[in-house]
Amino acid sequence: MVITLFRLSIPPEQEQFLEEKFINRSRLVDQVKGFISFKLLKKTQNENGLEYILMTEWETEEDYKNWLNSQDHARIHKKEGAPFSGNKTELFQVVCQ
Amino acid sequence: MVITLFRLSIPPEQEQFLEEKFINRSRLVDQVKGFISFKLLKKTQNENGLEYILMTEWETEEDYKNWLNSQDHARIHKKEGAPFSGNKTELFQVVCQ
Repeated sequence: MVITLFRLSIPPEQEQFLEEKFINRSRLVDQVKGFISFKLLKKTQNENGLEYILMTEWETEEDYKNWLNSQDHARIHKKEGAPFSGNKTELFQVVCQ
Repeated sequence: MVITLFRLSIPPEQEQFLEEKFINRSRLVDQVKGFISFKLLKKTQNENGLEYILMTEWETEEDYKNWLNSQDHARIHKKEGAPFSGNKTELFQVVCQ
């Protein structure tokens, strides 16, 4: 299993916009081979603006990379926007549970 | 639901020690009220030493804090050691899935 973390900070006035964007996400990724879960995480103690993490779980790194390079991924991000594309996604293996 | 992330870096020669420590963890926390899961995450692309995240999921922030302040928590960390106590745990709410 692998987990991706994508960290982003926003100014407080974008809080509702950001959360509604993900609450109302298309859920197309949920059907992709190897996809396990998506979570929007909000830091409880914020020092600089509001901090979030987009977290996804995948069966294998290959499944995640196939999704990343797929036409569906490009289509969804074109349709829904990718306003946080300046940040970098971190990829982790699950060593044990 | 809340998620905690505890990030740590180690020199490469401690890789086996660290991973075995968590593979062989006592699992006492697994029975604690509100505990959902523990995962040891290992970054796939490392720039400075080896980077890991200890991730836990809890039903509520209160459940997590009760565990943190419990005698069992103190006992386990005394018994198993807490060699990474210099770092800071980040706490996140799950906004949506």
